[in-house]
Amino acid sequence: MPERPEMDKIAIGPLPYMSVMPTVLVGANVKGKANYMTAAWATVACMAPPMVCVAINHARHTLKGIEENKTFTLNIPSAGKVVETDHCGLVSGEKEDKSKVFRTFYGKLKSAPMAEECPVNIECRLFKSVDCGSHVLCIGEIVEIHLDKACTADGKPDVAKIDPLVYSQAEYWHIGKSAGKAFSKGKEYVKK
Amino acid sequence: MPERPEMDKIAIGPLPYMSVMPTVLVGANVKGKANYMTAAWATVACMAPPMVCVAINHARHTLKGIEENKTFTLNIPSAGKVVETDHCGLVSGEKEDKSKVFRTFYGKLKSAPMAEECPVNIECRLFKSVDCGSHVLCIGEIVEIHLDKACTADGKPDVAKIDPLVYSQAEYWHIGKSAGKAFSKGKEYVKK
Repeated sequence: MPERPEMDKIAIGPLPYMSVMPTVLVGANVKGKANYMTAAWATVACMAPPMVCVAINHARHTLKGIEENKTFTLNIPSAGKVVETDHCGLVSGEKEDKSKVFRTFYGKLKSAPMAEECPVNIECRLFKSVDCGSHVLCIGEIVEIHLDKACTADGKPDVAKIDPLVYSQAEYWHIGKSAGKAFSKGKEYVKK
Repeated sequence: MPERPEMDKIAIGPLPYMSVMPTVLVGANVKGKANYMTAAWATVACMAPPMVCVAINHARHTLKGIEENKTFTLNIPSAGKVVETDHCGLVSGEKEDKSKVFRTFYGKLKSAPMAEECPVNIECRLFKSVDCGSHVLCIGEIVEIHLDKACTADGKPDVAKIDPLVYSQAEYWHIGKSAGKAFSKGKEYVKK
């Protein structure tokens, strides 16, 4: 390895860090009652079949419901619901009934509650739970996606209309300006 | 379940959808040569020990390197490197040598290449590979995080200075305005 005198980096140790993440509300029925938990440690896990994953602390009330029913939902709140969204991350369903924070509806899976006020609702059947330590990574196969008609463009979810909350360093952010199209911008690359 | 005549949603089927995701470059040595692959299907998987996960298609050249060495890196490019970043998603390391797109350095793990021009570099030891179908979810325990000194605030990564690429619907975006502090905004909630 050649020396890199120009490099000016510091080692900050192992931390549970990611640059930006989606803000989601994990929906689950716990003992028959709808519950919503705010989370950001979520992403797509597979294309075919379509899957998502979300990391949930072992102590969470929501996890009990996922284990009970083997189903859960990921609900994408708009920035206009930041107060309700953050509230669901501040209080536990074990101590406070969160079933009335949003209007709940059910879809194909009868045991996975969805928040009507969220423009996107992703219904999942639990595919696998991976115990990573403090958190369980819940991987769910997507059964259906429900989308507000007002938030579509060509029948697909439109990020500008959804106005989702980007999560980074304990703060919620709006999405900003475009930085270029994927699978396109790279064509400008000139080989070194 | 009560009827919800006010609800105006459409079912769009199961799709590999998430609102917003981070843009990362997955680094791996394949047959001794550094390779970088663009990905967005990544997030934090665990707090203690700190872990991240990233979904990678079975056919990817990068996956061979991860399986070979049981190590990988996630590198966070700044928006200024969008051309190089997207380029690494357009061409396969099997057909084109991508080892010179970025200057490579190594850290604690001697087999996990990191891109110097990326302000954040996350070194991981493979914890578990979960075969989900078309994609393998690679879960890695974070061994070290390297951070550009110029991108710190109180010794931690600063999102405004990093200017990461938010990924949504095949487009890269800058982060926008704040929508409120997490674990704080929810205190304004008035119970229904």
